Amino acid sequence: MPFDLEQIDDVIHGRVRLGIMALLVRDEIADFNQIKDQLKTTQGNLSVHLRKLEEAGYVKIIKGYLGRKPRTQVQISQKGRKAFKTYLDEMSRLIEGARE
Amino acid sequence: MPFDLEQIDDVIHGRVRLGIMALLVRDEIADFNQIKDQLKTTQGNLSVHLRKLEEAGYVKIIKGYLGRKPRTQVQISQKGRKAFKTYLDEMSRLIEGARE
Repeated sequence: MPFDLEQIDDVIHGRVRLGIMALLVRDEIADFNQIKDQLKTTQGNLSVHLRKLEEAGYVKIIKGYLGRKPRTQVQISQKGRKAFKTYLDEMSRLIEGARE
Repeated sequence: MPFDLEQIDDVIHGRVRLGIMALLVRDEIADFNQIKDQLKTTQGNLSVHLRKLEEAGYVKIIKGYLGRKPRTQVQISQKGRKAFKTYLDEMSRLIEGARE
């Protein structure tokens, strides 16, 4: 049945987190600033959402340097890939259900 | 570009509201209690989300009677149908973008 909302992963469903995951599932790894620019969000907002994704084990935050400049990268995990796939399947099902 | 989050209608995107809209786009009109049961939510929670949809002009709340018993029905509006279609199109695009 298409309306079992509990099947929709709320960690991913949030609009900004959905954008992060969609981006990472395509690119695997991305710079913090690159994500921020692509999603047109702020540093603070992005940090909050990345923390939530990290707590769920969907992404890994990698802090390092590029030359002397600090650089933060974000990488999707296997668990994150799997969760995103499940999310897409559920949303596809809901969309199909609604279009019937 | 698949990550323009502003294209995703936040009024619809909320999980419960998404369920309400998916249900109404299929059934056109439904009893409050029927929606509540189908979405496994509470009266208070459903009321809050219906108000938000009503404020956006996406649904109409119809209060009446069935015999002597008060009955509340919810009907999707033309504006709501259009907004839901746009939402589905945007989500489909995002899903396709992420799957490429």
